[in-house]
Amino acid sequence: MPEPATIALPTYADIELAAQRIAGVAHRTPVMTSRTANARTHAQLFFKCETFQRGGAFKFRGAYNALVQLPDDQKRRGVVAFSSGNHAQAVGLAGQILGIPRVIVMPADSPEVKRRATAEYGAEIVLYDRLTDDREAIGRRLADERGLAVIPPYDHPAIVAGAGTAARELIEEVGPLDVLLTPCGGGGLLSGSALAAEALSPGCRVLGVEPLAGDDATRSFRSKTLQSVRNPDTIADGARTASLGRLTFPLVLGHVADMLTVDDRTLVRALFFLWERMKLIVEPTGALAAAAVLERLLDVRGARVGIILSGGNVDLSQVQAWRALL
Amino acid sequence: MPEPATIALPTYADIELAAQRIAGVAHRTPVMTSRTANARTHAQLFFKCETFQRGGAFKFRGAYNALVQLPDDQKRRGVVAFSSGNHAQAVGLAGQILGIPRVIVMPADSPEVKRRATAEYGAEIVLYDRLTDDREAIGRRLADERGLAVIPPYDHPAIVAGAGTAARELIEEVGPLDVLLTPCGGGGLLSGSALAAEALSPGCRVLGVEPLAGDDATRSFRSKTLQSVRNPDTIADGARTASLGRLTFPLVLGHVADMLTVDDRTLVRALFFLWERMKLIVEPTGALAAAAVLERLLDVRGARVGIILSGGNVDLSQVQAWRALL
Repeated sequence: MPEPATIALPTYADIELAAQRIAGVAHRTPVMTSRTANARTHAQLFFKCETFQRGGAFKFRGAYNALVQLPDDQKRRGVVAFSSGNHAQAVGLAGQILGIPRVIVMPADSPEVKRRATAEYGAEIVLYDRLTDDREAIGRRLADERGLAVIPPYDHPAIVAGAGTAARELIEEVGPLDVLLTPCGGGGLLSGSALAAEALSPGCRVLGVEPLAGDDATRSFRSKTLQSVRNPDTIADGARTASLGRLTFPLVLGHVADMLTVDDRTLVRALFFLWERMKLIVEPTGALAAAAVLERLLDVRGARVGIILSGGNVDLSQVQAWRALL
Repeated sequence: MPEPATIALPTYADIELAAQRIAGVAHRTPVMTSRTANARTHAQLFFKCETFQRGGAFKFRGAYNALVQLPDDQKRRGVVAFSSGNHAQAVGLAGQILGIPRVIVMPADSPEVKRRATAEYGAEIVLYDRLTDDREAIGRRLADERGLAVIPPYDHPAIVAGAGTAARELIEEVGPLDVLLTPCGGGGLLSGSALAAEALSPGCRVLGVEPLAGDDATRSFRSKTLQSVRNPDTIADGARTASLGRLTFPLVLGHVADMLTVDDRTLVRALFFLWERMKLIVEPTGALAAAAVLERLLDVRGARVGIILSGGNVDLSQVQAWRALL
């Protein structure tokens, strides 16, 4: 596939269109609050619970927005996605709803709960070794052989625009925010959220939160040069992404106020707070933004703070191991 | 304290009054649905999530309703409660809000998360041995010595009426139900729910669900004679209650359609479904009603089914041990 000379970045108008396309198919997820969390941070926190989204994560928004726009002949041939888990489930489910054949290329060490759920959505699964194989190469070979459309996990205008609909709903429901934080893996959710906040809550500072071991986006943001990591050692498996993308890097540079990092121990403390006090099942990656606020890595006193809990596909057999990090 | 000759049972009017008293203090908890759960049962299920109630369980409704009605001099002297956990937290929190001193008599083997939360609400905690001590005797001695009012966990008109406000909210929100199921320990939630359903959804069958090892209420219901259990071996620690009470036994006999029991293994399957698929932290006792439906212990095909998830105070260090039951 030839590379286009210029890249058309998505805008807020694309988020509006995405919101129309997913209406009635994606869940309008609840916003939760916690007196305890507010008291701890001296702020008003609004948790947008994409954990309750279909497929268990915000990813369904972008996947459905991308798949529903495919030409009919492509819908018949099918799609392929490579993903550490939540994007896989999202494409699996969106394809099932739309009757589109789909192949998912997943790391062999993905959490079992994610693999099982992807299989339940009726997708064909191809496993690869995260340390030795190139998932993109596998995906592109399958695409060439079978005429499948590649649905990338974040670096695609329809994926970014779909992801932005969560922040749009949050601001619609609770009103303007002073700060909005999202987890950052490949930067799709962060980019979409920044576009939505800019349009709907002018002056809102949008921050991305990464695992410390996978701080490529933070380094890219500060150096204004794309940086990458390779298989970072973090429990935030959804944010092990190598780098921002060709769309998300310029979007993050242009629309995000700052980046933060969270070490795994801090992340586990936030996870247990979300589980035990707020009774919300959130996966490590999904709790990155919450961790930055709850563990007071930034000062939000007096502010109205939006926090996206991006996913809840936890392998609960890990709970003991994670507790040991405390 | 002399026993009254006759007992005035609470009615739906008491639930209305309780709803007014707790408005703006208790949370109006969300109702969740699940396409997967509906598909599995061929029914429309509505999960009333008291897991998100203040204190992590429906118990806050009754505790606040009882405490707010105490005479001023009693409010100054304080209250004492004996509880396996959630009632303790509820009295702890309601007393904190109302500025009432409170002593909580808790089993020494209560889940650590419950003891910690009770302490955080500023209550004085007195521990007892569940196998050798008589918690009621300890509570009554403290009451006598210090002039405290005993706030029983279920067998009290204000507690039953407060508990009934959850079912009232559920039916108000989703409309009439064909079936409503609640967990049953001492029968307060079940009794209150039955009164609410009878008034707001005539013809709705209200069912109570107990752990199989602690099936005293089921046996009491069938034999129409009060039966009891002693320290039943079940992971549903909130339903280890010895028996229904002087109020809840006649209420259950008069207003409940049937009782069901669930063994621990079945309960664990339901717990993992609620956690992993619905992303809801629910404690074993809180999942009893859900287990009966999700594991198809009764036929609800085509029905509109209300399910109260009564609490979410889980000690997550137990997850591995519970998984081993599968």
